[in-house]
Amino acid sequence: MEQTAVSPLDQLIYLAKLTPADCPSDAVLLSRVSLADWLVCGIAGASEPVAEKMQAFAASEAGTASAASLFGGGEASARTAALVNGTISHALDYDDTHFDHVGHLSVGIYPAALAMAEVQDATADELCAAFLTGAEAAIRTGRVLGAAHYNRGFHQTATAGAFGATIAAGRLAGLNDMQMRAALSLCATRASGLKSQFGTMGKPLNAGIAASNGVEAAQLAGLGLSSADDGLFGPQGFVETHADSPEAFLAGFSELRFMENRYKFHACCHGLHAMIEGLRPLAASVDLADVEWLQIRTNPRWLRVCDLKTPRTGLEVKFSYAWLAGMVLSGLETGDRALYTDALAANRDLAAFAKKVEVVADASIGDQQGAGTLTLRDGMTRSYSHDLAAVVPPSELMERVAGKAKTVLGPRAAPVLELMHRLNDGPRAVSARGIGALIRRA
Amino acid sequence: MEQTAVSPLDQLIYLAKLTPADCPSDAVLLSRVSLADWLVCGIAGASEPVAEKMQAFAASEAGTASAASLFGGGEASARTAALVNGTISHALDYDDTHFDHVGHLSVGIYPAALAMAEVQDATADELCAAFLTGAEAAIRTGRVLGAAHYNRGFHQTATAGAFGATIAAGRLAGLNDMQMRAALSLCATRASGLKSQFGTMGKPLNAGIAASNGVEAAQLAGLGLSSADDGLFGPQGFVETHADSPEAFLAGFSELRFMENRYKFHACCHGLHAMIEGLRPLAASVDLADVEWLQIRTNPRWLRVCDLKTPRTGLEVKFSYAWLAGMVLSGLETGDRALYTDALAANRDLAAFAKKVEVVADASIGDQQGAGTLTLRDGMTRSYSHDLAAVVPPSELMERVAGKAKTVLGPRAAPVLELMHRLNDGPRAVSARGIGALIRRA
Repeated sequence: MEQTAVSPLDQLIYLAKLTPADCPSDAVLLSRVSLADWLVCGIAGASEPVAEKMQAFAASEAGTASAASLFGGGEASARTAALVNGTISHALDYDDTHFDHVGHLSVGIYPAALAMAEVQDATADELCAAFLTGAEAAIRTGRVLGAAHYNRGFHQTATAGAFGATIAAGRLAGLNDMQMRAALSLCATRASGLKSQFGTMGKPLNAGIAASNGVEAAQLAGLGLSSADDGLFGPQGFVETHADSPEAFLAGFSELRFMENRYKFHACCHGLHAMIEGLRPLAASVDLADVEWLQIRTNPRWLRVCDLKTPRTGLEVKFSYAWLAGMVLSGLETGDRALYTDALAANRDLAAFAKKVEVVADASIGDQQGAGTLTLRDGMTRSYSHDLAAVVPPSELMERVAGKAKTVLGPRAAPVLELMHRLNDGPRAVSARGIGALIRRA
Repeated sequence: MEQTAVSPLDQLIYLAKLTPADCPSDAVLLSRVSLADWLVCGIAGASEPVAEKMQAFAASEAGTASAASLFGGGEASARTAALVNGTISHALDYDDTHFDHVGHLSVGIYPAALAMAEVQDATADELCAAFLTGAEAAIRTGRVLGAAHYNRGFHQTATAGAFGATIAAGRLAGLNDMQMRAALSLCATRASGLKSQFGTMGKPLNAGIAASNGVEAAQLAGLGLSSADDGLFGPQGFVETHADSPEAFLAGFSELRFMENRYKFHACCHGLHAMIEGLRPLAASVDLADVEWLQIRTNPRWLRVCDLKTPRTGLEVKFSYAWLAGMVLSGLETGDRALYTDALAANRDLAAFAKKVEVVADASIGDQQGAGTLTLRDGMTRSYSHDLAAVVPPSELMERVAGKAKTVLGPRAAPVLELMHRLNDGPRAVSARGIGALIRRA
């Protein structure tokens, strides 16, 4: 058969269905030759040094099959738990973002760190420290890969994230320098993740891939698997093969770039957040019906992203300046995912208000900033401006995460709030296994 | 601390050792904020559709923990077994090669196929058919990625191989077309493997990575994970992100490129094999001491690879035309790995013979071909020529693999030889689980 008009992918799917009768008989015979030859190589290979290590890896996966906890209940091996928890925790796309990284830190690194911390019976203090160094490693590796890497189609959350997950898992596993070097170099031949998965379950899976690769690389290096001297930054290493114009590595750790990590407190497009934060303080004193006109000034790039004038669905609302502005001034909790329904898109008051909203591109405004002016019926004006990049004290962020927990989880937030309280008291008292029990039961 | 004179990799290894006391206290607090925020996202994410599928994946890994056999003994989940067996069977680098692919087919695909065939209790017939279609898919995908992909630093055995492993595992898992499409697209965000691992245990690991990625993608697609429409050949898919100058996909399956698969019957550099095959028939009638002169004509590229004039170690012997020619004419079994010792490099007869050997570059000879002329003391000449690309009937190849099994495995070859006999009789009688038992016990 010839399928020249069919796409390559369809060709492969057709190929997968060929029966031996469809194939040249010699090809079928050759597949048996290959089987016999492969068996010889495998049986003989089982006496090689690498075989002992791989056997130990399989045993460690089986032996720790119930060592690491899963969101939603159940336990698995550390590597499987990392894959599963990375995916589940990125499913909502409601987690943190680091713009310099470029990507999401927690969902690629905490699943690896928690799984390994449970196996090692570490404290929450050790867990957080492993995450912190892993996150910093991921940010700096992501910076080296650069915007060109992202623009080519790679997803730094998965690619750079895997190296952060390796550092976090390797640190908790107690790797020495030589083993950590091997772990990072093994991760280099394993790290992957493409942006073309966006809009599918493959996107959250990319976070799980980062976490899982970190655990696997740390485990294999701990068992003594050898690897390239520098598989990450060295010749034909990950950077050289995956980055068209790599940036220099940022040296020195007296300042940590992790400080620029940003959290999501509104269940909508990040481009709307500066406006929401700017308008929120005005909501208490302004009634929606009193607004004559609202001018929103924003970075030009966002106009192509989140300026839907008349959203038709709850999902489209998440990309509409006009709707979110109306929601904030109506006092609605924009952090509540359940709020974004099709009925909200059809709300008459919000639709009427949207007609009074003007969105203006302003190149002098950064893409993490927002500004605007409300004109009221009485002629008075109120202005706002907000910069998401402004420093917010961690204690205030912790408070807002507590609010997010209540909004998103409802009564199920209680154990998380209690944990946050205990973390504030000093995390030594909390064990990783305690956190594992929390995610299994929450 | 500033470490500007230290390499980026060393910086990361230093970073991994920072304690909370070394870090800004706000960074430590922020790592707790991240933990709390991540917990909220994970607990809430556990109600998303993808969570149910990932939970099922974890359960299937645990539930099949003893379903797939390992070379060297023991059992593991299908995904772990694929990783372990791919690595172990490529440890010797003695497995097959497909020059168009570019890479090794069996070690990336059979481990995935066998693990899934054991889980599914398939026959050897179904196992071989799954491998055959997977191998053809890997070859055609490898051709699309092209020489530029390999030259950039990617290892087709791992990258293109993963798509073949996906086809093989997906076919055995009974995926429908839509699921197979998702499996290939999920594999696209997972496939990886770098050549910079060559010379380390990371090289055989790359074969295991291909196999493991195939099993994982097939399992996740079978559970209903969604993915890009065409993550492989589509926009920002694997080909677009990983190939600088992709070739066209070869359509139509009336001829299978798998027929060009080549097997290794000598435990030395592939560049020597054409000469060895050419000289072997002359060995019975020519005595080493009777040779006056041997002229070996070979493709110019091999002179930089395997023309060591005076090897000092057993490893160096594997890259010496002169030594291998002498070994063949002495009747030594060049397929025996144990033969290549340092003592062999010091052998006086072979050293004396090597002085009579001339290696000539000849651009008219292809890189799979070899030719030469023996001049004997009595003035008579004997010529040879051999083309590794010439078609060898599968039955003859099966015979030679049987010889390889005896040479490499010794008495442990018996169950493999018996299996080969039963495969020749018709593979329906053989079960994948029977082959699994063989590799556990051999």
